[in-house]
Amino acid sequence: MSITTLFGIELPLIQAPMAGATTPAMVVAVCEAGALGSLPSATYSPEQLRAALAEVKASTRRPFNLNFFCHTPPVPDPAAQMRWRARLAPYHVEEGLDPAAPVAAAGRAPFDDTFCAVVEEFRPPVVSFHFGLPAEPLLARVRATGARVISSATTVAEGRWLEEHGVDAVIAMGYEAGGHRGSFLGLDMASQPGTMALVPQMVDALRVPVIAAGGIADPRGVAAAFALGASAVQVGSAYLHTPEASIPAVHRQALAQASDSNTAVTNLFTGRPARGLMNRLMREVGPLSAEAPAFPTAGGALAPLRAKAEAEGRADFTPLWAGQAAGLARPMPAAELTRWLMRPLGNG
Amino acid sequence: MSITTLFGIELPLIQAPMAGATTPAMVVAVCEAGALGSLPSATYSPEQLRAALAEVKASTRRPFNLNFFCHTPPVPDPAAQMRWRARLAPYHVEEGLDPAAPVAAAGRAPFDDTFCAVVEEFRPPVVSFHFGLPAEPLLARVRATGARVISSATTVAEGRWLEEHGVDAVIAMGYEAGGHRGSFLGLDMASQPGTMALVPQMVDALRVPVIAAGGIADPRGVAAAFALGASAVQVGSAYLHTPEASIPAVHRQALAQASDSNTAVTNLFTGRPARGLMNRLMREVGPLSAEAPAFPTAGGALAPLRAKAEAEGRADFTPLWAGQAAGLARPMPAAELTRWLMRPLGNG
Repeated sequence: MSITTLFGIELPLIQAPMAGATTPAMVVAVCEAGALGSLPSATYSPEQLRAALAEVKASTRRPFNLNFFCHTPPVPDPAAQMRWRARLAPYHVEEGLDPAAPVAAAGRAPFDDTFCAVVEEFRPPVVSFHFGLPAEPLLARVRATGARVISSATTVAEGRWLEEHGVDAVIAMGYEAGGHRGSFLGLDMASQPGTMALVPQMVDALRVPVIAAGGIADPRGVAAAFALGASAVQVGSAYLHTPEASIPAVHRQALAQASDSNTAVTNLFTGRPARGLMNRLMREVGPLSAEAPAFPTAGGALAPLRAKAEAEGRADFTPLWAGQAAGLARPMPAAELTRWLMRPLGNG
Repeated sequence: MSITTLFGIELPLIQAPMAGATTPAMVVAVCEAGALGSLPSATYSPEQLRAALAEVKASTRRPFNLNFFCHTPPVPDPAAQMRWRARLAPYHVEEGLDPAAPVAAAGRAPFDDTFCAVVEEFRPPVVSFHFGLPAEPLLARVRATGARVISSATTVAEGRWLEEHGVDAVIAMGYEAGGHRGSFLGLDMASQPGTMALVPQMVDALRVPVIAAGGIADPRGVAAAFALGASAVQVGSAYLHTPEASIPAVHRQALAQASDSNTAVTNLFTGRPARGLMNRLMREVGPLSAEAPAFPTAGGALAPLRAKAEAEGRADFTPLWAGQAAGLARPMPAAELTRWLMRPLGNG
């Protein structure tokens, strides 16, 4: 079955869910343009998610995707937290902040019974997961709503695992992609394949349709993904340039300077590997550090630094999520971007 | 000007020069099939190179490419060498070898006056460089032979540098590619872009034609590269499966097990980052180590370990160069592979 038939959409394009940056307005614009908009839930409380879903459903009758993180919350490790706070303390002192001030919890909520009830209430046509899949009883409840279920794989092995666990399609997430790596069978970044290598090997290994993600931010990337055998594409960073994206000013300014080689995969901001534009913290601590505590807690001690710096127009401590192709996209409204991405090549 | 016109070839495909693995027979087979065969010189003495060139020229009248490394030989650092030997000593003991036995020099010869004289004598139609370009007086002598000059860029910044220094085309080498990274403006591997992101940004930045490399090992990859805006493709790993490749048996066996996610970029074998299939040394030392001495010296202390293990059918200490798409290609003769790669998609 084609992806367009599977999801009931016109264009084989998914706007990537980007927690914090994607707004209901973005989702609606993409859906109304004929592609699949994705609403991310990881930074919402259940009540905030209900409000966002109500906003989406009030503005479009087209299919949309609701995305959840499905990590297992870590066992509390107060010693690791204190080591991280100690590592960051010189920055606090430099910024005039008290490194001993209480740290707020840094939350990315995993899919659970409460969120599942929201799915049952709003019945999104597509539900996507990141970091694998939730436990089978929860997944069965999602399936019972009639939702198509998809998830991300950063290796063929993860794609096979997802297919064996019954997903309707797999997002093949190449190493170029921005934001959190969907990796769940292992977090070794040294062996992560790029989109060019991953997609055809995933297509050969799976029976379900493969959605290509990573490094796709213009019509050339879309055409290349289809040449590689993908059934659809998922695009993230390009939508960060749209007026519908809700990102800090320092993030938008950094995106305007995005190049092919000024991003890196870092675990400093959340504890889990994610690609973003290089900034001071990444340069000085090293983008991947054993000192960062477990996902999603690393951001807590960073929050005051980030707020102080952002207020002064500095991106020193802000996660500047972006993929390696972010520089290819131009600022334009989300609906226009959706149509532009799917434009045939050689068409001006 | 198109790449085929520029090089005087029929198919916009370059067989990548793979020092040690590429034979004159491979170069001839590729050239006769209508693409550009590339003879690597880095593991040859000038006399060996003359013999190989004579063999190529005796068997084909078609254009071919002669490739050189153009690194600056490192300042001797005996202390770093001893640290590296100490790091490897437990392996020597385990293998029944004397860690204190004299170490042979590990050579990859850079382009110099002697090699330049070989270029002037044999006048290859295309000369490619890796690790930047040689000093201007040498480069001027190469240009004076009428050779087209190309080199590899792993970032847009390197591509711009090469264009400013007068190359006729740039090889955009994505992070997926096997063997030595062509990087020369910096060796930070954390920010290296994948082919999908690199090629279109390189095409937008340069006036000279862009040759896509990295992750291309079947007709889908070739078609994708052209969709991204490449004027030609360069393919390496796929040719390692051919009978014309000269590689150790353990390397050929490992290639048969190549997957999307069992390679990594490592500096352990030569001192410079290069992508190969994971093996024991890479797993245990970590693929990128500050302990490896400067290029090209790291291989010296490894040679006895490698010889002992290979004789016993083990790839524990052998550089198993391969890109992330090596698993896509099937064993077939080099001429057949050349035609298969350029086959239009949807053609069975």
